[in-house]
Amino acid sequence: MNAIERLIRPRSIAVIGASADPGKTSGRPVAYLKKHGFGGAIYPVNPKVGEIGGLRCYADVASLPDVPDVGLVLLGAERAHVAVRELSERGTAAAIVLASGYTETGAEGAARQTQLMQAAGSMRLLGPNTIGLVNLTDNIVLSASGALAMDHFPAGSIGLVSQSGGILGAVLSRAAARGVGLSKLVSTSNEADLELADIIDFLADDSATRVIALYIEAIRNPARFRAAVLKARRAGKPIVAFKIGRSEAGAKAAVSHTGALAGSDRMYDAFFRQLGVIRARTFEDLLDIPAALSAGRKLSGRRVAILTSTGGAGTILSDSLGIAGFATPAPDADSAAQLRALQSGSHAMLDRNPIDVTLAGLQPDLLRAAIHILLASPSYDALAVIAGSSAVGSPALLADAIHDCLPLSDKPVIAYVSPYAPDVVSVLTQRGVPAYTSAESCARALDGLLKAGMPGQVEISGSMETLVDISDFPVGTLDEAQAKALFARFGVPVVTEKIVATAGEAEQAARDLGSKVVLKILSREIAHKSDVGGVAVNLTAETIGERLAVMAEEVAPKAGKRPERFLVQEMISGGVEIILGMHRDSLGTAILLGMGGIAAELFQDTTLRLLPPEGGLTLTEAGAMARELVTWPLLDGFRGRPRCDVEALAAAIVAFSRMVAQLGERLSEAEINPVFVLPAGQGVKAADGLVVLDAST
Amino acid sequence: MNAIERLIRPRSIAVIGASADPGKTSGRPVAYLKKHGFGGAIYPVNPKVGEIGGLRCYADVASLPDVPDVGLVLLGAERAHVAVRELSERGTAAAIVLASGYTETGAEGAARQTQLMQAAGSMRLLGPNTIGLVNLTDNIVLSASGALAMDHFPAGSIGLVSQSGGILGAVLSRAAARGVGLSKLVSTSNEADLELADIIDFLADDSATRVIALYIEAIRNPARFRAAVLKARRAGKPIVAFKIGRSEAGAKAAVSHTGALAGSDRMYDAFFRQLGVIRARTFEDLLDIPAALSAGRKLSGRRVAILTSTGGAGTILSDSLGIAGFATPAPDADSAAQLRALQSGSHAMLDRNPIDVTLAGLQPDLLRAAIHILLASPSYDALAVIAGSSAVGSPALLADAIHDCLPLSDKPVIAYVSPYAPDVVSVLTQRGVPAYTSAESCARALDGLLKAGMPGQVEISGSMETLVDISDFPVGTLDEAQAKALFARFGVPVVTEKIVATAGEAEQAARDLGSKVVLKILSREIAHKSDVGGVAVNLTAETIGERLAVMAEEVAPKAGKRPERFLVQEMISGGVEIILGMHRDSLGTAILLGMGGIAAELFQDTTLRLLPPEGGLTLTEAGAMARELVTWPLLDGFRGRPRCDVEALAAAIVAFSRMVAQLGERLSEAEINPVFVLPAGQGVKAADGLVVLDAST
Repeated sequence: MNAIERLIRPRSIAVIGASADPGKTSGRPVAYLKKHGFGGAIYPVNPKVGEIGGLRCYADVASLPDVPDVGLVLLGAERAHVAVRELSERGTAAAIVLASGYTETGAEGAARQTQLMQAAGSMRLLGPNTIGLVNLTDNIVLSASGALAMDHFPAGSIGLVSQSGGILGAVLSRAAARGVGLSKLVSTSNEADLELADIIDFLADDSATRVIALYIEAIRNPARFRAAVLKARRAGKPIVAFKIGRSEAGAKAAVSHTGALAGSDRMYDAFFRQLGVIRARTFEDLLDIPAALSAGRKLSGRRVAILTSTGGAGTILSDSLGIAGFATPAPDADSAAQLRALQSGSHAMLDRNPIDVTLAGLQPDLLRAAIHILLASPSYDALAVIAGSSAVGSPALLADAIHDCLPLSDKPVIAYVSPYAPDVVSVLTQRGVPAYTSAESCARALDGLLKAGMPGQVEISGSMETLVDISDFPVGTLDEAQAKALFARFGVPVVTEKIVATAGEAEQAARDLGSKVVLKILSREIAHKSDVGGVAVNLTAETIGERLAVMAEEVAPKAGKRPERFLVQEMISGGVEIILGMHRDSLGTAILLGMGGIAAELFQDTTLRLLPPEGGLTLTEAGAMARELVTWPLLDGFRGRPRCDVEALAAAIVAFSRMVAQLGERLSEAEINPVFVLPAGQGVKAADGLVVLDAST
Repeated sequence: MNAIERLIRPRSIAVIGASADPGKTSGRPVAYLKKHGFGGAIYPVNPKVGEIGGLRCYADVASLPDVPDVGLVLLGAERAHVAVRELSERGTAAAIVLASGYTETGAEGAARQTQLMQAAGSMRLLGPNTIGLVNLTDNIVLSASGALAMDHFPAGSIGLVSQSGGILGAVLSRAAARGVGLSKLVSTSNEADLELADIIDFLADDSATRVIALYIEAIRNPARFRAAVLKARRAGKPIVAFKIGRSEAGAKAAVSHTGALAGSDRMYDAFFRQLGVIRARTFEDLLDIPAALSAGRKLSGRRVAILTSTGGAGTILSDSLGIAGFATPAPDADSAAQLRALQSGSHAMLDRNPIDVTLAGLQPDLLRAAIHILLASPSYDALAVIAGSSAVGSPALLADAIHDCLPLSDKPVIAYVSPYAPDVVSVLTQRGVPAYTSAESCARALDGLLKAGMPGQVEISGSMETLVDISDFPVGTLDEAQAKALFARFGVPVVTEKIVATAGEAEQAARDLGSKVVLKILSREIAHKSDVGGVAVNLTAETIGERLAVMAEEVAPKAGKRPERFLVQEMISGGVEIILGMHRDSLGTAILLGMGGIAAELFQDTTLRLLPPEGGLTLTEAGAMARELVTWPLLDGFRGRPRCDVEALAAAIVAFSRMVAQLGERLSEAEINPVFVLPAGQGVKAADGLVVLDAST
């Protein structure tokens, strides 16, 4: 067993600072371990006490009769490091430090955390500022929190790793009330050593865990996280993550809570999506979606049959499913005929969906027959059963009827419980029918099942064929011509242009280009040329000379000096204007694609893709990005417009992404704005751009 | 007392078809009435039974010793009309018909419903197909539903009217479990007679009702609904509505459930917004928002203090509030100093928000002091308290601490309960602190409080000064020139144009217009001129003649005949293109304003405003519509563009709306697309349009 296995499935546990009073916080851990029948050795350590709950108490770590797998340290931040050093010296596999007062409280606390890590040496450490962990599979609690007090744990197949300790109790009590079973609950909190990735890696191997749920404040090490997630996914374990910091206000609270800097939410969105991690949108989803996944059934389409015994709730569910993109089609002719045959002579309309069996009340045979028909029907991918008030008195009746039918099909079956009826929710869930009290939760659970069946975008890496030499480019902000020359060197097509200094040179350049041209000032200092009057369009060889003179006059007072260099470039007309850029934060480096003009600015019509560790994007991935834009129809021949050269756009995205990948940290900013995407077959042309190069590292 | 008052607060009740067996459905009503101590007369009617539960049972309605206020009819659809006729003949105020088998089942059922209404005569009728009603204020149940069985009703100030009977039980049991109090629960269901508006009107006068909640499938009579809502709002009672049929799938289910046609969801959105009705987005909101409103506190801003004793939950709430547009600022210096003084020497960071009093555990004095400080702080408009697992054991402790502080301030105080703890939720809510188990519910409850404080857009009607004569316009589809002439007659500025037949006339027209012109075919038959090559722009007197000949050739084969008439119009350049149209459905007639081009089509950037009964829109309202567009910045001088003539646009919207109001049903379609909004001071010009006039009615 490695250290993390020994931490989560220990054979022996030392409790440092244990109290003999089970009413005290420091008295809880030993009491918890005994209550749940821990089968290994428990070593309370407290110099002032001889015995705790019938167990011999040791004066210090040195006097322990054996090396414990785990040391649970109950001491405050002032003394915890002492115990940690002693545990490490004895060869303990891992310590759990519950005390707060470390990085989450500022500079002084951060110093304490450094001291703590030095004391730990090669021993692994969970926390500090953690609530600890619960191994529900083996009935082991390593915590002093009253929030985890419970006589019987709801054991099951969902493993939860949380960067907040506080929510563990909430998840545990909510899961228990609903009949949702958990395998392991681990709070990594300050993550001085063990972090999300370590526990995910453990859960990927843990046979009791089928689904992994994550409560995330910030991912400190994206590469390790990525590797652990990929391992879990290879093991067939879906991962659901709730990430706080979705709003600015929330992000601030996260900072104050763990001292971690939350990355921007859209980057997390792209990161999760690319790894195939299902994102929980609300805290409730973090239990709702895993509950559905842990039933182990796969959803292969969006058609849902709703079986109801109460009209309003069926309508509510149908409505919510519709909003979430699911369909609730009427039964096919065959199934409808079978349904009608069940209940002749009544007013009930069994050939509609929701399929209303109100009059059947709770006749189990009728219910079973209806469920059987719906599960067998080729018209449906899933079944949602509505439990009305008739189920309240006898929850097992409905649950058993459904449960009996489950072996007939591998389609997912979920339940919406309309009245307040916690027993019904719990019994249904325990019988393999994940049950929800809100229609939106049903929709999100089904959505989670669909997403779990989709491949992640994991394999998107495109390799770099050749290293491009850019040693001739200067460091710092490039001017526009240099920026485009850099793009062109990596294979992005750019407009034809010429640098000029005088009216005469401009006229010659316009003549050489042979079409309408654009005149711009060229400067490494002026970022926004238009703002200072430094751009003129629609010029010819006849008009450009005079225009250059006027521009020089206009720009001089605003820019502080008379511009010395100008750019004469071919003027592109037609085509669709696109923005192509890069964004880097703690999660990695992303390529941003957006529609130009108002679509990007007023409607935020952009999409992000994080670069894989190995290189740039593939053509497939680049094409997918373009199709994700709301304004994709503009590229695809909207309303009789010509279809644009989408293949050339994808190639340009790939070229740009390879540039970003190869240059790495040397590239601190890069944006092409706009890229003109011309009609099919005519390619793309980068017309303006911005690059800031750092000194080569 | 009027008939509806007698229905909801009856002094005497006849139960037609009552059974002596309380285990049977038809045995329930008498048992319910007795259990809850109904103080008036109960007259069971059943020819086969002499006595029910100690009450004399009558053979028929004719033999009743007195005229009952209410007749509760338990008979099936085949016989219910007989009892209804007898009740009406005795002078009963109102009957409740529970039976199903009416309009909701098709044509045969619809005939039965007509028969039922004829039998009712001047007597009012609730249902059919209703679950009945519960008057919780006076402990009166008029229902046979097992879903409404309950020993003690959670009495309070929320009145619920529902077009679905099925959800009444769900609301009642959920409210009871949460400690949310209700005043009246009424299911109008098929609404053969009494409808939403009637019950809203009653609740507006009902002293026990402070908030009105509505479950709506379709509003059958918008004018009556409007009047009742305005009455309730004048009485200071906020209204919260959950409308199903938000998705197409849901709309279908609604049809099958009540036989009512659901109007389009966006029209309902505008309708509710204009009436100041708060729209519940989920079924849970229908209880969550009224629960907050019934506490009777007003929210005057978006700044929320979060007091927590558990880190994770505070972060979750802060995050959700941030997403919903609320702010969670840190305490001001004064408040922070007071908070710090409460808890010296600990690591807790009391000067941040969420304000974390974890270490305080549940010390009531400390809690009270912290709450006091936060309620008094000028930095906050509301307080959200988080109940962690420490509250589970002693819910009253937290509830009392908050309750004691409530008189200190009239700011709203709500609670987020993090662990599963139904007792904590219930006790807090009953103590005047509406409590929620999801952070999103907290956010939506606060949002409901904000909306309740906003004036509805009720007073938007602009009157018609003069009636415009349009008797010279033909019936049917107008051609483009006629359509614009109609718009112009009502005061919408249109482009200058001339109808021509020949190349020579076109050249003369272009010369007269003196600028670049547009040439279009003019036809009442061809709706999409561009699609057949019938539009050419950028023409001059020199080029238009030849272009006309080409156009005539091109259009002829596609249109089936050679076009005979053309329109030569001034060409507008610059300005922003807007769509202005009308839409009519069962709720009324709405004016639609949208940005032209891709914004309207790909981003659905449009806004709707229903016309008031009295006339068109006001200038203020028209201006507000423009500002609601996501693309409003384009009109307002986005990124250095010229500001557009927004005043002229508002005037054009008003003129268009008055046309729509005056023409009423005669106008079956009307759209201006585009209206060019020119730079400030230069006005607007309608450049194309479509009108279909019906025969004058």
